[in-house]
Amino acid sequence: MLKISEYIKGLVLTPLKKIDQPKGDIYHALKKKDDGFSGFGEVYFSSVHYRKIKGWKLHKKMILNLVVPVGEIEFVVFDAREGSATFNQFNTIRLSQKNYKRLTVPNGVWVAFRGRDEGLNLLLNIASIEHDPNESEVLDVSEITYEWSKL
Amino acid sequence: MLKISEYIKGLVLTPLKKIDQPKGDIYHALKKKDDGFSGFGEVYFSSVHYRKIKGWKLHKKMILNLVVPVGEIEFVVFDAREGSATFNQFNTIRLSQKNYKRLTVPNGVWVAFRGRDEGLNLLLNIASIEHDPNESEVLDVSEITYEWSKL
Repeated sequence: MLKISEYIKGLVLTPLKKIDQPKGDIYHALKKKDDGFSGFGEVYFSSVHYRKIKGWKLHKKMILNLVVPVGEIEFVVFDAREGSATFNQFNTIRLSQKNYKRLTVPNGVWVAFRGRDEGLNLLLNIASIEHDPNESEVLDVSEITYEWSKL
Repeated sequence: MLKISEYIKGLVLTPLKKIDQPKGDIYHALKKKDDGFSGFGEVYFSSVHYRKIKGWKLHKKMILNLVVPVGEIEFVVFDAREGSATFNQFNTIRLSQKNYKRLTVPNGVWVAFRGRDEGLNLLLNIASIEHDPNESEVLDVSEITYEWSKL
């Protein structure tokens, strides 16, 4: 059977343009007219060391637009939204320069991410609202069972 | 005599927060409520190789918010706005993880930048409008005389 989408409802993976230039390349992240854009609140970087896992975290209001310009980061997303067509489903997505895409994360799903490169693993988040500790929930990595592959 | 500002009129250098975390640090870039914010058009990365100079470029509409999360980039800004209090003045600013700040660039000034690290020199631009080739002007690096330091 053909699957219309292999992703959790609302999770969008968008290929991004890299423009080769002799003095140094340009890489796109997000334009206002892009489908993933849903308001501007804040832009920040998060780094994650090799083999370390940050998460789980769930946002109730912030929509994330995630881009990895350096290193490689593995994201695991878990749909905990009752009534969602993809309830209880996991997605695993690796972003890097080689797989240069933007991951748009909707509200109500759990996200954890792990550094896969021994050097810097750098994540850019273009967030739809400013940081607000009251709109997110946090669980320890052990509280949602997921079999992380060997690294 | 005390100088109120050593910067070209409209050029703003803002210290940014880095939050140390055991699994990997967080670095701020721009929040909507920040003074430097003047609308969201596009976010993109530009890299610049060691010793290479990109520029000169002048924007007539786009306001730039520049952050350097990796490597070290030297920016030279030249005020070509007739009637400006800082007309004909240059500023040289180096951004890096060590000097982690945001550089807000107003309209009507010329900017060139050079990679100072032998590895990756990565620039994030949070631009107030989307890319539009008609709102910028370009000059060859030789067309504005500036004595770049030896590297």
